[in-house]
Amino acid sequence: MSELQPWQWDESTWRGHVERVRAGRPLRPRSWPGGAQVAVALSFDSDHETPALRDGEVLPGKLSQGEYGARVGVPRILRLLERFAAPSTFFVPAVSALLHDGELKSYVDAGHEVALHGWIHERNALLPPEAERELTLRAADTLERLSGARPVGIRTPSWDFSAHSLRIIRELGLAYDSSLMADDDCYEIVADGEPTGIVELPVEWIRDDLAYFTMDRFTTLRPYTPPRGVLSIWRDEFDVAYAEGGVFQLTLHPHCIGHRSRIVILTRLLEHIASHDGVWFATHAQIAEHALTGGTR
Amino acid sequence: MSELQPWQWDESTWRGHVERVRAGRPLRPRSWPGGAQVAVALSFDSDHETPALRDGEVLPGKLSQGEYGARVGVPRILRLLERFAAPSTFFVPAVSALLHDGELKSYVDAGHEVALHGWIHERNALLPPEAERELTLRAADTLERLSGARPVGIRTPSWDFSAHSLRIIRELGLAYDSSLMADDDCYEIVADGEPTGIVELPVEWIRDDLAYFTMDRFTTLRPYTPPRGVLSIWRDEFDVAYAEGGVFQLTLHPHCIGHRSRIVILTRLLEHIASHDGVWFATHAQIAEHALTGGTR
Amino acid sequence: MSELQPWQWDESTWRGHVERVRAGRPLRPRSWPGGAQVAVALSFDSDHETPALRDGEVLPGKLSQGEYGARVGVPRILRLLERFAAPSTFFVPAVSALLHDGELKSYVDAGHEVALHGWIHERNALLPPEAERELTLRAADTLERLSGARPVGIRTPSWDFSAHSLRIIRELGLAYDSSLMADDDCYEIVADGEPTGIVELPVEWIRDDLAYFTMDRFTTLRPYTPPRGVLSIWRDEFDVAYAEGGVFQLTLHPHCIGHRSRIVILTRLLEHIASHDGVWFATHAQIAEHALTGGTR
Amino acid sequence: MSELQPWQWDESTWRGHVERVRAGRPLRPRSWPGGAQVAVALSFDSDHETPALRDGEVLPGKLSQGEYGARVGVPRILRLLERFAAPSTFFVPAVSALLHDGELKSYVDAGHEVALHGWIHERNALLPPEAERELTLRAADTLERLSGARPVGIRTPSWDFSAHSLRIIRELGLAYDSSLMADDDCYEIVADGEPTGIVELPVEWIRDDLAYFTMDRFTTLRPYTPPRGVLSIWRDEFDVAYAEGGVFQLTLHPHCIGHRSRIVILTRLLEHIASHDGVWFATHAQIAEHALTGGTR
Repeated sequence: MSELQPWQWDESTWRGHVERVRAGRPLRPRSWPGGAQVAVALSFDSDHETPALRDGEVLPGKLSQGEYGARVGVPRILRLLERFAAPSTFFVPAVSALLHDGELKSYVDAGHEVALHGWIHERNALLPPEAERELTLRAADTLERLSGARPVGIRTPSWDFSAHSLRIIRELGLAYDSSLMADDDCYEIVADGEPTGIVELPVEWIRDDLAYFTMDRFTTLRPYTPPRGVLSIWRDEFDVAYAEGGVFQLTLHPHCIGHRSRIVILTRLLEHIASHDGVWFATHAQIAEHALTGGTR
Repeated sequence: MSELQPWQWDESTWRGHVERVRAGRPLRPRSWPGGAQVAVALSFDSDHETPALRDGEVLPGKLSQGEYGARVGVPRILRLLERFAAPSTFFVPAVSALLHDGELKSYVDAGHEVALHGWIHERNALLPPEAERELTLRAADTLERLSGARPVGIRTPSWDFSAHSLRIIRELGLAYDSSLMADDDCYEIVADGEPTGIVELPVEWIRDDLAYFTMDRFTTLRPYTPPRGVLSIWRDEFDVAYAEGGVFQLTLHPHCIGHRSRIVILTRLLEHIASHDGVWFATHAQIAEHALTGGTR
Repeated sequence: MSELQPWQWDESTWRGHVERVRAGRPLRPRSWPGGAQVAVALSFDSDHETPALRDGEVLPGKLSQGEYGARVGVPRILRLLERFAAPSTFFVPAVSALLHDGELKSYVDAGHEVALHGWIHERNALLPPEAERELTLRAADTLERLSGARPVGIRTPSWDFSAHSLRIIRELGLAYDSSLMADDDCYEIVADGEPTGIVELPVEWIRDDLAYFTMDRFTTLRPYTPPRGVLSIWRDEFDVAYAEGGVFQLTLHPHCIGHRSRIVILTRLLEHIASHDGVWFATHAQIAEHALTGGTR
Repeated sequence: MSELQPWQWDESTWRGHVERVRAGRPLRPRSWPGGAQVAVALSFDSDHETPALRDGEVLPGKLSQGEYGARVGVPRILRLLERFAAPSTFFVPAVSALLHDGELKSYVDAGHEVALHGWIHERNALLPPEAERELTLRAADTLERLSGARPVGIRTPSWDFSAHSLRIIRELGLAYDSSLMADDDCYEIVADGEPTGIVELPVEWIRDDLAYFTMDRFTTLRPYTPPRGVLSIWRDEFDVAYAEGGVFQLTLHPHCIGHRSRIVILTRLLEHIASHDGVWFATHAQIAEHALTGGTR
């Protein structure tokens, strides 16, 4: 069976793959808290040096790009979120939290959520089956110890949701995941046809900074799109979310969006958002919980 | 002979390759129905999960990107086409149709055409010779069963028109193909110098959404061009088509164009088109038939 | 010696490589004919199907993209050049000329120059030493027979100027080459320190359409830049050329620039150019000759 | 140990990699000379033919692209810097300096700094351990001989700061490096926890011309972003630097930024900068020295 080409698969094979993890009932609540028209879910993956370490890239140049995130990006972001009174979620690999003393605490003190993002930004799909579980559990313990609270949500590193991720999420009793892309708004994850009670708060490359701005000298990844062009994309995403009464979600990285010419567009975007009535800035945990319990339209 | 390099080929070799499938007489009719100035051929390839399955990519993250097309993209597109009263053509791999119950029927009920797009979005040029035929025939039967009508047109998956595609098209008695690029307007396909009676309604990467917006983490494919930039390209394509009295054709994908910041540009484009007098929105089948029988200018 | 790494090379080695083919005296004439302020050197590489054939890509889809150049692109370009009364140069691989009967004659009849561009758009640097010579000589004979005049200039296919190209250019007694990039304006080619009397009319990727618009599904080449953005680049290039009194040179391809949304920007560019006083539109041969004999500033 | 995957590393391993070369105390002075609000650090890496030679690419086409830098780019840049009275730093591979007689002297005569940039633009991380040292020392002697002054700063070629670079910098007694990216403003380099007294004047791909404009036919590197879009990025970078009272640093290459359509944006950028009060244009050496000794805010 395993040697068959996909065009030779029988129906139970292709249907089985598709049914494994699926979008279930839509969780777009009748209304947002305080009668808000839109929920804004800002998130920052504080990866810093961990993706380089994960790839065994240990020379000073590459590591200094990640260090920028902790040294320059995070303070700029925290000032900006304070200005807009916008509770947000920081997904932090445990090694990154350990390397940057006090960073988790600065998130918690400012009213933000800290959530899971792997141990060393590992690629789940490439790990031996048991390693993903062991690293995730160790990361949960580490974040709890450093932040003072047990995480209730996860974003798999690189959104690399493996064949085993859901089982680990259930074992940890998490309330939500934020790694999948089947909708703009929250939905319940269904596994092999069974509702799981776990909320998906979906992401998209469209609303990720690295997709547009990554530079990697030794591949051909380059900063493709001027930030001002990306601002117009994110503004369009928000405007439709607002018109629909849905969720507007962003995935940003301190070592990427934290740069001077990029923090400018995040500032402009937040000014655009804040100029609307009925905007609910909230953490991923708050939005997932409200989506699950707030009734559907 | 087969070991010769192309610069060593004799004339019969390079001429033979070029003559195999060729553009014949132009099929730009004297006028469009109702005296319209331009024919607008909108098409949507409802691939959803099939390109991922075809490549054996079966993890939840990748599959959820395709699921978005069926869950969110298609309803948005159908609402938009209804607003503009624009009959369109949906090219649907059979596996995609089987995975998404009722989707074909929703197309037909709204007055759109359903046409062939392979079994599981297979790469024809990489298949054993007989497999392309068997999969295409099975797809035709499946679409007929689910949509209630036998398809009359085909778009080869990935526009991957193989050395055997034309023979299969003739065996199925199809009226048109929409995979080749030798013109902006319809033409008759000529095979080894012989007119075939089959209409080509040509496509182009310029008028395809995936060419600009694809994101693939593990290659360096990224969303290159902000949608507002692509809108300006498509508007220019339409304006010249209008000035020439020809066909304006688009190839879009629900899991791509269906996103909030992209459906915005399709909306703007349709508003631009609809602001002109003499626009004939029609299915690919209707345009191919009129092009063949409506006389030439 | 051949196993040394470049950082181990001695001075005679790296200096030898650099001195082989070098830019000599600048050939920016004191003035252009009629006292013009700028010389505009438009060129079109009518490759059509030949780059695909050269790579052994012989399926109908790929070939139809090249066919578009001959069927749609060339007529649009000839109409545009007539409107602006702009004599231009067409660099044509011999196989392309043989495949498209009468195309060379249509260039000559409209007052344009036909020049060398290889046999089948071969990659010179990958050929056995003698093959480049044999193919180039055969191409010269073919172009002479079809166009009625012996070509006086060459552009190596893909600007792939090999270690042997200059020797072949001298054997053919050509007046100019247009494949190198050491200046914006014409210069005399120097070989191992000796002036050759051969004029280089330099090219650049900045002023090439394929660099911005190529689409190749199986690599990650995509149409990067909206044509309107490229128009602004070319306008800036022209404006500085005008201010300096130099040459403005473009390398375009009928199967690329010939598309509706791209011919628009060529039209806008020519309108911009034609709005200036003192513009001399001329063939590459005319500009090279004047640059050589017209005195230097 | 060496066969462990990064996700298996113990804490001393990943912490050891990160601590090797680190950003220490920030060196943003209380004020800039003359009470200026911002320091502008323009730099030009005069690589010319050396990156091609370093890769063994010795055909005339590729080499002519580098030659453009020396022949056309450098004179344009020197005129522009003179117009704005902007002392700048030229990082020059020694082989490039040897190939282009008198170029170093033209920099010095115009009041600019000459600093180290390797021997033949070698890739430090790929060299045998001792080769990086030997080539760097030889380059320092060569630059001193040709420019009349011993260099006090270095930029590792391709910003490829190896595990050995810092040791060589200390042996040479250099005052500053400009290859790392952990901040926007100057900082002291810390090695394994010990302050070194060496100033880092940080760079970034955001403020590099090649990241946006490189064209390489045989990979998929293309000129991604129209220069006018890059101008807007650099203007945003400057504006925030100005608001913060920090350093605005640019890394440019004569064979890239020197082209007509690109020198235009450098001109516009310098006009924008010069329209502000309190701008201190200075060499990297001047800024590094002032940052170290001028007190911190």
